[in-house]
Amino acid sequence: MHVSADRLVAALVEVLPADAVLVDDAALTAAGRDTAPLHAARPDVVVEPSSTAEVVAVVRTTAALDAPVTVRGAGSGLAGAAVPSRGGVVLSTRRMARVLEVSRPELLAVAQPGVVLTDLDAAADEHGLRYAPDPASSAWATLGGSAATSAGGLRGLKHGTTREAVLGLEVVLADGEVIRTGGRLRKDVAGYDLTRLLVGSEGTLGVITELIVALQPVPQTSSTGVAVFDDLEAASRAVTAVLAAGVVPATLEFLDHRSITAVEDAAHLGLDTTAGALLIFGDDGDASAVQRSLEQIAQVCAAGGGRDVVVAEGAAQAEDLLAARRCALPALQRLAPVADLGDVGVPRPHLAQAVHRIGEATRGRGLDVAVFGHAGDGNLHPVLCYDPSDDGAADAARATWGEVYRTALELGGTITGEHGVGLAKLPYLELQRGSAQTALYRRLKAAFDPGGLFPAGA
Amino acid sequence: MHVSADRLVAALVEVLPADAVLVDDAALTAAGRDTAPLHAARPDVVVEPSSTAEVVAVVRTTAALDAPVTVRGAGSGLAGAAVPSRGGVVLSTRRMARVLEVSRPELLAVAQPGVVLTDLDAAADEHGLRYAPDPASSAWATLGGSAATSAGGLRGLKHGTTREAVLGLEVVLADGEVIRTGGRLRKDVAGYDLTRLLVGSEGTLGVITELIVALQPVPQTSSTGVAVFDDLEAASRAVTAVLAAGVVPATLEFLDHRSITAVEDAAHLGLDTTAGALLIFGDDGDASAVQRSLEQIAQVCAAGGGRDVVVAEGAAQAEDLLAARRCALPALQRLAPVADLGDVGVPRPHLAQAVHRIGEATRGRGLDVAVFGHAGDGNLHPVLCYDPSDDGAADAARATWGEVYRTALELGGTITGEHGVGLAKLPYLELQRGSAQTALYRRLKAAFDPGGLFPAGA
Repeated sequence: MHVSADRLVAALVEVLPADAVLVDDAALTAAGRDTAPLHAARPDVVVEPSSTAEVVAVVRTTAALDAPVTVRGAGSGLAGAAVPSRGGVVLSTRRMARVLEVSRPELLAVAQPGVVLTDLDAAADEHGLRYAPDPASSAWATLGGSAATSAGGLRGLKHGTTREAVLGLEVVLADGEVIRTGGRLRKDVAGYDLTRLLVGSEGTLGVITELIVALQPVPQTSSTGVAVFDDLEAASRAVTAVLAAGVVPATLEFLDHRSITAVEDAAHLGLDTTAGALLIFGDDGDASAVQRSLEQIAQVCAAGGGRDVVVAEGAAQAEDLLAARRCALPALQRLAPVADLGDVGVPRPHLAQAVHRIGEATRGRGLDVAVFGHAGDGNLHPVLCYDPSDDGAADAARATWGEVYRTALELGGTITGEHGVGLAKLPYLELQRGSAQTALYRRLKAAFDPGGLFPAGA
Repeated sequence: MHVSADRLVAALVEVLPADAVLVDDAALTAAGRDTAPLHAARPDVVVEPSSTAEVVAVVRTTAALDAPVTVRGAGSGLAGAAVPSRGGVVLSTRRMARVLEVSRPELLAVAQPGVVLTDLDAAADEHGLRYAPDPASSAWATLGGSAATSAGGLRGLKHGTTREAVLGLEVVLADGEVIRTGGRLRKDVAGYDLTRLLVGSEGTLGVITELIVALQPVPQTSSTGVAVFDDLEAASRAVTAVLAAGVVPATLEFLDHRSITAVEDAAHLGLDTTAGALLIFGDDGDASAVQRSLEQIAQVCAAGGGRDVVVAEGAAQAEDLLAARRCALPALQRLAPVADLGDVGVPRPHLAQAVHRIGEATRGRGLDVAVFGHAGDGNLHPVLCYDPSDDGAADAARATWGEVYRTALELGGTITGEHGVGLAKLPYLELQRGSAQTALYRRLKAAFDPGGLFPAGA
């Protein structure tokens, strides 16, 4: 057990401005959970440093008192990685939210971790540039949090995820040392690739205090198309056929039957509620190349049994066609008090089988289940809808997730494609990686953080 | 000092077929160097395991005798990472050279580390696919070695380097445990990203025994163009203008004046030997998109002072235009007994200044210097040409390299963009990364390899 909250707070107010140390009930409650529905805790104190030097002070002070530190961005994480399960200090990056530089000749930005993704994108846009990763939480998620979780998004198929976008990091280590990994260059192989090791390490290895990220010129155009299929098997075969035809669109999303009916009930978009699957495809870039790419996908879909195939004419219609995908989670959230959003991955050819087996896993458990996701990546988002006050519903959800993870692994997939491990999936990590690898994770964690200041990574 | 060569060999022949343990002079000499000109050593024994199980046996046996292991692919590395500077065992992957699987629906291959890159490409080509990374040594470099060094190539600007291509690894650790990192999926954030940590770790953390790598559909077309500039400043500004215009071609290469004259002397391609710089640009993909992209680059070059701007009409002319770049190193190798090929990176806007300062660094040292490289990445390959039997020439080269590295770092760059650190640059790694980071490298290395079985990484 670490020191008392009082001693911790007393030590922190010595090194931070008074208003950067929060102990009121609202702050402690809010900092106790992120967007994972089944995990919550309560820290002893929340700190809001404004600079790398203040982060160093927090780390040194807290480490000296043997209390833990949990780093927090916007709390939009879906796996509980920001939940301070051991109490102690929550270090919020809220006051480190400046875009420090946008370089058009170098196609990059330098920014602090608390910058919200859409703010970064707006700063880039002033220079005709954009930040490619686009998680659904872009309007509130922070750059630091999305780097810590290696967040994905709708454009990942063609443009990669956060892992590909982060070029360099400034990081405060557990001993208070500050290192700079990577840099401003796309190609730099000097030393171990700590940048990519830290991206996706979910706050377990250090505190990200500055990031250098790649930007892209804003594409000339982007557009969208949709196709309806009788069943997910046909939709999945179409996805494989599209990619095999040499077309790699920016976006290739699917909704299953339950997602389609929920969206139609909520948003009245005129979707065919008898459909087994909806495929939404999009691309961006040179206008005529985008047009040709979407037409080619439309042809492949039609040849593979797709019905009602539409390619948007103009930006407004493109937005309309994307609406079904954007509405999926909000629509499912209307079905029950909890819409527990999952995230597993399987090799593309096993997509339909995975969705089928996820349905089987929920059978007889009294849970409503829908699945949508990134068909091009084999990245599925099952959503379990239930009322946690119902007897046994939370247990049924937990048991279902266990089966979902085992299914993904049996099909050669992963327990998490883009949301991360967090507290939610930590018990399943060894099932995927094996005990020799998780033992290595623990040695690696100890190389960064021998005292366990930050949360455990395995 | 480790055990005697006799004891080591006696122990290894117990666990390997007799013909997989080599002690003849030719084998020991050949395994003593890679393609770094200033580094050589002599191992006690060379082993050629044929399976992961045999690699485990070599690792366990050698570790038990406290002797070191240096892993070797084709020896095409340019930084000395395959040089067995402590003697002991060289583990060659020569007999692990099978492509195990090519999956067209998943756009990936599974292969052993000893597969030569062009053989992998040929296997992929049977399925209409290709392996994107294309280091100049593709015809002899191995997949394992190129992963260990995170090799780059001409297509890196658009398609990324080996870091982006490797999806998963099987690795034998120093304690003989076998782990599998990553997997068949593009998106997988379960646990620390050991795949990218191992890619580029240059054999210091473990032995790669199997790889899963991403493949791409073979592009419909690829083409090339060239432009001549009065000076490198203008060429460099054109590169920045091309990228700022939103065009990211597959290839954007430059040759400086000395490279141009050397190529023209050797190959008589009709190059303008009064030019200060030659820019070679190429793209691949949809035929009309490629055509449009090259025309756009040609326009930007012409607007920026480019002369004799040509875009290839047809594949044969495209190959001809690339010839100048392909001939650069062979042409420089004719100038002196040693053409010492370097590899530094700088932010794109500092490209011309870097080349200028590299020229200054060689002045008065009696060395001939030329620079070519990947302009789009800011990745420069200075080449120092000299006769090492000349008094002080090798020392002059070493001193020059020191200045070149310091120049790259002063301009915000790196001591290595794609060739790696190896023995050649190990003394300069701390200058770039700082002592806190190299100390972390050493702790991280110890987490993988506490006994120092593999070469040091920092």
